[in-house]
Amino acid sequence: MLLEHITGAQDVRKLKPEQLSLLAQEVRLRMLEVVCRTGGHLASSLGAVELIVALHYCLDTPRDKIIFDVGHQAYAHKILTGRNKEFATLRQAGGISGFPSRDESDYDTFYSGHSSTAVSQALGLACARDYLAAQESFRVVAVIGDGSLSGGICFEGLNNAGHLKKDMLVVLNTNELSIAPNVGAISTYLNKLISLPIYNRFRGAFDNFLESRVPRGRRLKAMATKFEEGLKGLFIPGMLFEELGFRYFGPLDGHNIEKLIPTLKNILSIKGPKLLHVITKKGKGYAPAENNPVRFHGVGPFELSTGRALGDGASPEKTFTRAFSDTMLKLAGTDDKLVAITAAMPEGTGLDGFRDAHPKRFFDVGIAEEHALCFAAGLCAAGLRPVVALYSTFMQRAFDQIVEDIALQHLPVIIALDRAGIVGEDGVTHQGIFDIAGLRMVPNLVLMAPMDGVELEMMFGFAAAGNAATVIRYPKGVCSTAGESGQPRPPIALGKPQILREGKAYVIFALGSMVYPAWEAAELLAAEGLSGTVVNSRFAKPLDRGLIKQIAARAPHIFTIEEGILEGGFGSAVMETLGLPVVRMGLPGEFIAHGKRSALLEKYGLTAAGIARGIKESIRRHD
Amino acid sequence: MLLEHITGAQDVRKLKPEQLSLLAQEVRLRMLEVVCRTGGHLASSLGAVELIVALHYCLDTPRDKIIFDVGHQAYAHKILTGRNKEFATLRQAGGISGFPSRDESDYDTFYSGHSSTAVSQALGLACARDYLAAQESFRVVAVIGDGSLSGGICFEGLNNAGHLKKDMLVVLNTNELSIAPNVGAISTYLNKLISLPIYNRFRGAFDNFLESRVPRGRRLKAMATKFEEGLKGLFIPGMLFEELGFRYFGPLDGHNIEKLIPTLKNILSIKGPKLLHVITKKGKGYAPAENNPVRFHGVGPFELSTGRALGDGASPEKTFTRAFSDTMLKLAGTDDKLVAITAAMPEGTGLDGFRDAHPKRFFDVGIAEEHALCFAAGLCAAGLRPVVALYSTFMQRAFDQIVEDIALQHLPVIIALDRAGIVGEDGVTHQGIFDIAGLRMVPNLVLMAPMDGVELEMMFGFAAAGNAATVIRYPKGVCSTAGESGQPRPPIALGKPQILREGKAYVIFALGSMVYPAWEAAELLAAEGLSGTVVNSRFAKPLDRGLIKQIAARAPHIFTIEEGILEGGFGSAVMETLGLPVVRMGLPGEFIAHGKRSALLEKYGLTAAGIARGIKESIRRHD
Repeated sequence: MLLEHITGAQDVRKLKPEQLSLLAQEVRLRMLEVVCRTGGHLASSLGAVELIVALHYCLDTPRDKIIFDVGHQAYAHKILTGRNKEFATLRQAGGISGFPSRDESDYDTFYSGHSSTAVSQALGLACARDYLAAQESFRVVAVIGDGSLSGGICFEGLNNAGHLKKDMLVVLNTNELSIAPNVGAISTYLNKLISLPIYNRFRGAFDNFLESRVPRGRRLKAMATKFEEGLKGLFIPGMLFEELGFRYFGPLDGHNIEKLIPTLKNILSIKGPKLLHVITKKGKGYAPAENNPVRFHGVGPFELSTGRALGDGASPEKTFTRAFSDTMLKLAGTDDKLVAITAAMPEGTGLDGFRDAHPKRFFDVGIAEEHALCFAAGLCAAGLRPVVALYSTFMQRAFDQIVEDIALQHLPVIIALDRAGIVGEDGVTHQGIFDIAGLRMVPNLVLMAPMDGVELEMMFGFAAAGNAATVIRYPKGVCSTAGESGQPRPPIALGKPQILREGKAYVIFALGSMVYPAWEAAELLAAEGLSGTVVNSRFAKPLDRGLIKQIAARAPHIFTIEEGILEGGFGSAVMETLGLPVVRMGLPGEFIAHGKRSALLEKYGLTAAGIARGIKESIRRHD
Repeated sequence: MLLEHITGAQDVRKLKPEQLSLLAQEVRLRMLEVVCRTGGHLASSLGAVELIVALHYCLDTPRDKIIFDVGHQAYAHKILTGRNKEFATLRQAGGISGFPSRDESDYDTFYSGHSSTAVSQALGLACARDYLAAQESFRVVAVIGDGSLSGGICFEGLNNAGHLKKDMLVVLNTNELSIAPNVGAISTYLNKLISLPIYNRFRGAFDNFLESRVPRGRRLKAMATKFEEGLKGLFIPGMLFEELGFRYFGPLDGHNIEKLIPTLKNILSIKGPKLLHVITKKGKGYAPAENNPVRFHGVGPFELSTGRALGDGASPEKTFTRAFSDTMLKLAGTDDKLVAITAAMPEGTGLDGFRDAHPKRFFDVGIAEEHALCFAAGLCAAGLRPVVALYSTFMQRAFDQIVEDIALQHLPVIIALDRAGIVGEDGVTHQGIFDIAGLRMVPNLVLMAPMDGVELEMMFGFAAAGNAATVIRYPKGVCSTAGESGQPRPPIALGKPQILREGKAYVIFALGSMVYPAWEAAELLAAEGLSGTVVNSRFAKPLDRGLIKQIAARAPHIFTIEEGILEGGFGSAVMETLGLPVVRMGLPGEFIAHGKRSALLEKYGLTAAGIARGIKESIRRHD
């Protein structure tokens, strides 16, 4: 075993080049042995093993910096940089993060998690290095995927880097043709690049040719000038990156360490911004992942020998995502103006069903949340009713578009915010905790959160029938089906809450995912003789001031509960509305690390027992 | 006069082609005659006159849609679409907006104001049109500038449009070489395009050539294939756009109506995504603006015959922007790690002085706020102390980067937020009213607002000496110099307010720009026998809980005042901290139209008199 002697990247560099393929194999096995138990981002990480081995071999890490975009391909990097033992704790509470993390290692310059930032960060490091020239120098490499390129910020970074001409290397790791769905012109472009049988060739061949055979060369150049318009029809590899100021090299087989190493060494010795294009296979080396890279992109625990998922055979519980998925199919049937947009997440958001049923009404715009919302504004202005499904954490990317391009324009775009609240294992970069506080100040906007799947469907129906820009937020995970066969619900009415239970000891205004836990808490307290009122608030904005005041007036203690950050959140809205003291329960003002969703909810008191305890203690303190 | 007969675009189309140049001249004169009185975005609007005349002539507006990116080049559009008379009220309260506005006209499909969104919006319109094929068809044109291209969202839109292949036209209006500062690889690329002596040529010449002379053509093609790497050295106009899936036409002289009209007609008849590149001169037709396009980009009232500014000869008052500008120069002298970043606004943010004094420490990244902050994160991670100067409204673009790439990473980047609060004439898309409520929930972040220039300098010094990511917000306009020769101020201490005046009737916690008005209000009230405590809060986050509680405990009535939206804002933070009823003064939860800053502050009660009135009325109601 080579791996057991690797305590950091310096040990990788002690190996002979011919040992590196074996090391890569050992890393791959280690990754599989852990991820089949913990779950994680397997397919991309399996694909990037040789590339990461080669990078650490050619660079002097951690002095030299590797920035992984998004970071879900970086498991080999973790295993090789002193975290092999801890790798067994991947994505577990207190264990190592599923993404690069500044807290974890000097080898990780940034926390990563949101796409398309690596070029900008790398350029910043390179500019600082050159400004601080007196200090020791270092090399900077950004590793990006083809998905990164669809995000505008990556283009902003390339545009600036091509201009500033600093020494830096961008490694563009693209998948083999046809695995990634083609969602943009850049994808088409990359596929053209890949489909040409060209590997590892270097610029300059033509210039040499011109110099050595002047008359013929001059003739060709003249012809080329005369017909340059026509030349557009020809395809020249890497021209797009060349025109952005980068020298383009590739495409190169990203699994061939013997070719990667001399190529990387050569390229790193060249001045200015360079882009090396490598091609790898998602899931490489593990047949189930190679055959189904979409499923193995982010995967739960599975049986190693077969790839079969573990633990979800018994009772597949209904999730909010599933409820949204079903709702969209229902609404599509009755409203032919309804269209759907995803930013590269058809499966994650549950829009894959809609895509398959209504391909003409479905748009995957790539990792481009800002564009997704402006594009939706255009669709909406022309009379359609777009539903944009995003994860709460990625909505942060499109904050300005929600304000300026949707709400200000009075365009009734509907935004479905999945993973709103604690997301669990993906951790600190992905927690969806900022949307309530961040959005409730936006004028014209309606912000709702359903207590369960039945109410989710009602809310989307309400939004689709209405005329307001609307955000509907719901968390990751299971949604209660307790109410599915129950009494008919009161219809959704703008700003109006629903009273679920009445009692005189206290009132609790609960929002969305916290309604059932609050309701259960009230039953626990009632059993102890403390009977309160439980309100399913339904809306975080607007609030029906009169009704809220009236309900609050019935009890001496007022509580709120939400699955979001407390500062400026839903509880704050209730307090503003009432102008009275309110005990606000929710998430504290801090970033929240990875761990099981259920465990984190318990940690922050967002369970029936936690809520009951909080109410009891608060009432005792005040009485 | 042709213009007096133009009641809408249909009247433009009734003219003979040879009359259009004259019409353009009349439009230009009308624009000058108004803007010299009202101020406005003159240089870009003067440059786009012929282009706009030609577009309305060739299109069937308003059925066909023109989307102006940012919209500050659209004055001719307003004048020609039924708003010539009202144009005299440009940017005045109750008058027409300085930007396209859905409220104003059917010719304006969107409110515009923030850059780089037009392609996305146009694509949405085109997709909706094709989906709703039963309805009547229309054509879609997005007009973008070279600045628009540096914004990532524009690239996201082009990438998606090139893939979806809808019929749409993007008109890229670039300035003549050398006017716009070159801040990105795309600028270099466009300058190369422009510097080639090629006008108005169409694709296909080469293909025809190949067909007509097969043997030679085949030979050339074979050579080209063999040496495609070498061909990178050649420059092929428009290749970058072609590779994004657009057919590129141009560059074309954007002031030559006779050429513009047949070209536009031809191009509009072609299927798929097209890009027409035109070159215009900023300030065209008005010598002072042609000679100084930067000053005439956004200009105040001026003397028409000379271009000399009116009304700022007497007493140039000190602005917050100027205080920031001076502070940066001072800090740069003592801290060589300090670097500065702007997103295409060196003059507007006051960083031009820093740029000239320290060119190696200054970065203009183009209209790319997201990149600006990720880039700053990189600079900071390598040991520099970047100050990113943005307008509050444009910070909304970089919300995710502040959360994920700055605050989460514990990187002490400093963000200077200018134009925080009411901006006045630029109006609804530019009001800086969301930053307090939007940022105060971000963990690890420090959020301050200075009462005047002296305190601004203290705050930047505090931030630069500290270790926290820090936002310092200040408004457009004059900053008081009353305190400049006064007593030494207590030093800034994290979260701690400064008590300016004490009294027992009430306490008012004032933030930033509202501190002096609150102080004055208190003096007015004291003269009437109502003596209160005035607190310069300094911080919106964090708040020193103990100190705030202690101060609030001294009086029966608690007030807050801020120049920001009330929902979730500073007042809400004080209320959360105290858990007591608080009367919050500030801006209501609505979008705020254009008008004079002073008039708008008065309208919302954010003046000494307004605050005094508010306090008196509230106390009377409660007593």
